[in-house]
Amino acid sequence: MLKGKIEIQNRVSIDNIFDEEKGVLGLIYTPGVAYVATEISKNKELTYDYTSKWNNVAIVCDGTRVLGLGNIGPEGASPVMEGKSVLFKILGGINAFPLCIDIKDKEDIIKFVKAIQPVFGAINIEDIESPKVLEIVERLRNELQIPVFHDDQHGTAVITLAALINALRLLHKEIDNIRVVVAGAGSAGYGIFRILQEAGCKNIVVTDSIGAIYGNRVKGIDSQYKKEIADSTNPLELNGSLGDVLRGADVFIGVSGKSNLLDKKMIVTMNKDPIVFALSNPDPEIFPSDAIEAGARIVATGRSDFANQINNAVVFPAILRALLDLRVKNLDEGMLVSVATVIADMIDSTQLKYDYIIPKVNDPRLVRIVTDTLKDAIAKHIEKKKQEK
Amino acid sequence: MLKGKIEIQNRVSIDNIFDEEKGVLGLIYTPGVAYVATEISKNKELTYDYTSKWNNVAIVCDGTRVLGLGNIGPEGASPVMEGKSVLFKILGGINAFPLCIDIKDKEDIIKFVKAIQPVFGAINIEDIESPKVLEIVERLRNELQIPVFHDDQHGTAVITLAALINALRLLHKEIDNIRVVVAGAGSAGYGIFRILQEAGCKNIVVTDSIGAIYGNRVKGIDSQYKKEIADSTNPLELNGSLGDVLRGADVFIGVSGKSNLLDKKMIVTMNKDPIVFALSNPDPEIFPSDAIEAGARIVATGRSDFANQINNAVVFPAILRALLDLRVKNLDEGMLVSVATVIADMIDSTQLKYDYIIPKVNDPRLVRIVTDTLKDAIAKHIEKKKQEK
Repeated sequence: MLKGKIEIQNRVSIDNIFDEEKGVLGLIYTPGVAYVATEISKNKELTYDYTSKWNNVAIVCDGTRVLGLGNIGPEGASPVMEGKSVLFKILGGINAFPLCIDIKDKEDIIKFVKAIQPVFGAINIEDIESPKVLEIVERLRNELQIPVFHDDQHGTAVITLAALINALRLLHKEIDNIRVVVAGAGSAGYGIFRILQEAGCKNIVVTDSIGAIYGNRVKGIDSQYKKEIADSTNPLELNGSLGDVLRGADVFIGVSGKSNLLDKKMIVTMNKDPIVFALSNPDPEIFPSDAIEAGARIVATGRSDFANQINNAVVFPAILRALLDLRVKNLDEGMLVSVATVIADMIDSTQLKYDYIIPKVNDPRLVRIVTDTLKDAIAKHIEKKKQEK
Repeated sequence: MLKGKIEIQNRVSIDNIFDEEKGVLGLIYTPGVAYVATEISKNKELTYDYTSKWNNVAIVCDGTRVLGLGNIGPEGASPVMEGKSVLFKILGGINAFPLCIDIKDKEDIIKFVKAIQPVFGAINIEDIESPKVLEIVERLRNELQIPVFHDDQHGTAVITLAALINALRLLHKEIDNIRVVVAGAGSAGYGIFRILQEAGCKNIVVTDSIGAIYGNRVKGIDSQYKKEIADSTNPLELNGSLGDVLRGADVFIGVSGKSNLLDKKMIVTMNKDPIVFALSNPDPEIFPSDAIEAGARIVATGRSDFANQINNAVVFPAILRALLDLRVKNLDEGMLVSVATVIADMIDSTQLKYDYIIPKVNDPRLVRIVTDTLKDAIAKHIEKKKQEK
């Protein structure tokens, strides 16, 4: 039995560690550590130099919305987060510790994350149910001293936009000229709506289990985030079912958690050259073979066993690596669009194909490209702030 | 620059990890992990088989009483706890993650520790100020599902008693027949008083900054723990200064945090063959050369550069290893006495000397001996409970 996927290892030489003269024990522990501890207490910034904080990420999860499994509790979430930690290490060189916690209350979770700031360089919020998690992330973005990344929201949004940019290139469509239907108004749906809007998409319709979300809808608008979607999307105030609003749309993006949500007949009603991203896991909203039969030109899923896997792992290790290295405090939507664009650009026009629109998860260029992009974005951000003064 | 003493490493083979057929990614992460996650959600005990919980210890510290440095904050505490984590790994094979937290309130800390139970097999409470920490530990002992160890209290008590047992052997004194003065009524002083009492010591006097603690003293009795000391020690109701109560005593144990608390003249007034354990770090209550000059027969300190270092590291990795392996829920004082006794017994009569009363920190027998002892103690405990029914 594996009994866990990760472990803690020492970075110091433990040869002769208990030897009074040759060992490092007196340096790394008492009495020598007292000097470092005192220096840090005078200047907290030194924690980045003298401890592992610079490379530590906490994966914080309350187990309320894990994979496609739902509310399976923090213990159930634990092996999933250890798997995520493995990916953080392989792809980003990051120490990601899974903190699957036995608290569910919004304020308690916010308080918990604030409490662990001294030892982590960044926070990755994971698999907490929405809309609770959207408020937690927004609050933490404002109230923490370290960056917070919400993979279900930000990671999914970035990789989806990257794939969409390349799909539109192949089909010669422009983002400001298309209609996109997003099925699902949870963390992923909200993140995708935000990034599409920032990227210039003017006609987005988001649907939930009731149907299309529009400006005057009352039923089921149960959070400020759904209200924001209602107010900012669906310029034609379309109402009705997913099938109704998909008629004439260019793009379907499914983050609904519902298998078989989409059927072939719906795809037939879409605009010419439909793009279908059926991202729910493990069972997509429609299987690729069916989507293609119904006329979809470019199809992506969340699964590794089909072409065009829209996989957050392309994004989260590289972004967190960049956040840690650059000591960025916060990612805004503009930065996320910049990252999505460079990830799309990694595939040049000669390589781009209907079944190859996203770089592979282990593409060795990812970390450098994302870091350089964020560095530029931050420099521009600082320049802009200067000019505003 | 070292930039941290610990890191997280993968325990899984990452060769060909992204290869659809040969790699383990589909097993350790989605989709394969869903099976394990679902099984755990039905039976939480499986977390011990399928995650690192069986070998994870949280070092929880709020930075209010670090080493001899005092309240230097969680950031200042961080390099110290990373050093402790290194010792946990080398000596106990344990993954100890330092959680130096930015909360100080007693209830908040209790809530925090309860929240992290899903991913840790045991808790080590460290360098939190007393008396707050004594109440935290008592509450956690009752309210957690996993064991809690308080090294400042329990670790210090066990190793001090082990050293005392051997010192008394050398000087042919009996524990139920001696007077012990403990200078300091914080976590260490409280832990030492408790273990000495359990070990059969009938005449203990604890002093604090005001002087001897006795039954009717009112001034400075500011917690239930000091009240417990006042009610349970000092059978002759001695009052006065440390110097006053040390007259005729057999043993001085200093955990006061005050250098030069003890002077030669005081030792001269002690009973024949005085034992002096001056354990404050980095500067002991009296330096060994002075103590010996004044007539002390056996002297110990907390420092590695003098003979007889009373070092918690002899104890905490082995006890935590045993707690994890045996899945003990709680250590009681009787178990702590048993552990102290076997640690003392590790030095047989032919080896025992005035300057060798405690095993070395890296004695390879420690883990097995402590584990066997606790196993026996638990078996006896269960047997006793059965007979009581």
